[in-house]
Amino acid sequence: MASTFKPEQARVPPALQLPSPPITKFKIGLCQLSVTADKERNIAHARAAIEEAAEKGAKLVVLPEIWNSPYSNDSFPIYAEDIDAGPDASPSTAMLSEAARLLKITIVGGSIPEHSGDKLYNTCCVFDADGKLKAKHRKIHLFDIDIPGKITFKESQTLTAGETPTVVDTEVGRIGIGICYDIRFQELAMLYAARGAHLICYPGAFNMTTGPLHWELLQRARAVDNQLYVATCAPARDVDGGYVAWGHSTLIGPFGEVLATTEHDEAIIISEIDYSQIELRRTNLPLEKQRRGDLYQLVDVQRSSSQ
Amino acid sequence: MASTFKPEQARVPPALQLPSPPITKFKIGLCQLSVTADKERNIAHARAAIEEAAEKGAKLVVLPEIWNSPYSNDSFPIYAEDIDAGPDASPSTAMLSEAARLLKITIVGGSIPEHSGDKLYNTCCVFDADGKLKAKHRKIHLFDIDIPGKITFKESQTLTAGETPTVVDTEVGRIGIGICYDIRFQELAMLYAARGAHLICYPGAFNMTTGPLHWELLQRARAVDNQLYVATCAPARDVDGGYVAWGHSTLIGPFGEVLATTEHDEAIIISEIDYSQIELRRTNLPLEKQRRGDLYQLVDVQRSSSQ
Repeated sequence: MASTFKPEQARVPPALQLPSPPITKFKIGLCQLSVTADKERNIAHARAAIEEAAEKGAKLVVLPEIWNSPYSNDSFPIYAEDIDAGPDASPSTAMLSEAARLLKITIVGGSIPEHSGDKLYNTCCVFDADGKLKAKHRKIHLFDIDIPGKITFKESQTLTAGETPTVVDTEVGRIGIGICYDIRFQELAMLYAARGAHLICYPGAFNMTTGPLHWELLQRARAVDNQLYVATCAPARDVDGGYVAWGHSTLIGPFGEVLATTEHDEAIIISEIDYSQIELRRTNLPLEKQRRGDLYQLVDVQRSSSQ
Repeated sequence: MASTFKPEQARVPPALQLPSPPITKFKIGLCQLSVTADKERNIAHARAAIEEAAEKGAKLVVLPEIWNSPYSNDSFPIYAEDIDAGPDASPSTAMLSEAARLLKITIVGGSIPEHSGDKLYNTCCVFDADGKLKAKHRKIHLFDIDIPGKITFKESQTLTAGETPTVVDTEVGRIGIGICYDIRFQELAMLYAARGAHLICYPGAFNMTTGPLHWELLQRARAVDNQLYVATCAPARDVDGGYVAWGHSTLIGPFGEVLATTEHDEAIIISEIDYSQIELRRTNLPLEKQRRGDLYQLVDVQRSSSQ
């Protein structure tokens, strides 16, 4: 049956086998941080939260989208840092690197506004346990939406979109990165699953309109459809801020189950990831072997053209 | 921006424009039927429910998966009908055709076991308001799952999988059809959206394990990701049956919102569909123009090769 239906052709190139992770069970920490207009305070505050999460056993710590700056097109250019120009030009990522090294943990560093040449990006940096920058994900799908009377925002007024999906091998498994609006595009999660990701991390700041409607739904959908873990991390809600975030940082298991979540206040969520659950769920529901490559194919364009 | 990112290439061939539906607002009826071992009773019972739904104003009526037979591999060959051999060979679809014609409604006829040559299929027939068979969808993804101690089922022991996705133009819009387990494959819904579907109907009989975990989640995910309506129709629960169905027939709007649903008892859900909501949501969140055809592409294999 398998060969008639060509399940292996449902992903182009064919999906990679799930790699053996360096660690099967570990604790993840999601730091739902309050964010202010004071960048130095934001950096010190994030550092303290990372330290607390590590103290509680987290081997992987995730920060929110835009945690060093208010979330606004006016603020992005002012708070942006030149990540590639080294620690002096980027105090936010310098702190992340040092914290990862000293605490011996992996950090998915939420995102900060990045400037590079004359462009601005919304960028997530991933540091490994020796403090090295392992990957930099620039938000691929910019948040340009218009729900009149509810929420209108155009990131593209100031930001440039990233050019590449990001999957990174870390001490805590293979991680795909998306930032906030990236989660709306199911293709990105499908592509990460086909690249062998165990976990997709989405730092994100959904709002008071789309948050209650879609935030948990999208996370659970990405997890259950792709049979992997999904972790999200949002800023805490500031009702006096220009952009009011929904909060609700969450960890979802590969059966779409909510493993840990919170409301909108500051919080450090500590929860356990067990990658053996991925294999179990893929045995229960062998979707990958049941796909119909004779009817549909998802092409990973960059992976295809590099082969 | 659009041209750099090639959003039109995110679907291959490019997505069709949403067609103007013949009707924008209308009532849909979802008949959550009890199903017994008595086929004649099942047919008469379904007919009465269709008549009641039409009396309450439904222009489109949807029936459950396998509504003329118990849901079991033992029953499928016994209750199967040769749909293509005409009304005498298929009393179940003959009734649907007559009801559609007399009541002047469109019917998405759930599914029945179909025999054709020496093969058996799980087949959904769509009838238009003059009683003509407009489309026949044979379940593409067979329900072969194994969650030990919870639910194990292998449709492939008796059934053959269909060979083609089904989109049909009716008096109540362009409808994509999936049957139950088909809903787990996000690619099928993406492909239907790219073919211009306004609505996807999934007759389905999720069970007591996957029902509470995934039934509503999957429906809402397909609707919100593809920005279209999703309607599901399940059999009512029979706790003495061999296969205990979850029930919970539901209508979902293009923002992923539950518009109408029910528990597990027999019910006829009448709710309103308003296709102008599709345009509205696609204006609010212009996902189609934001997709990254430079990074990923979903290929509709049959539509590609027919061009």
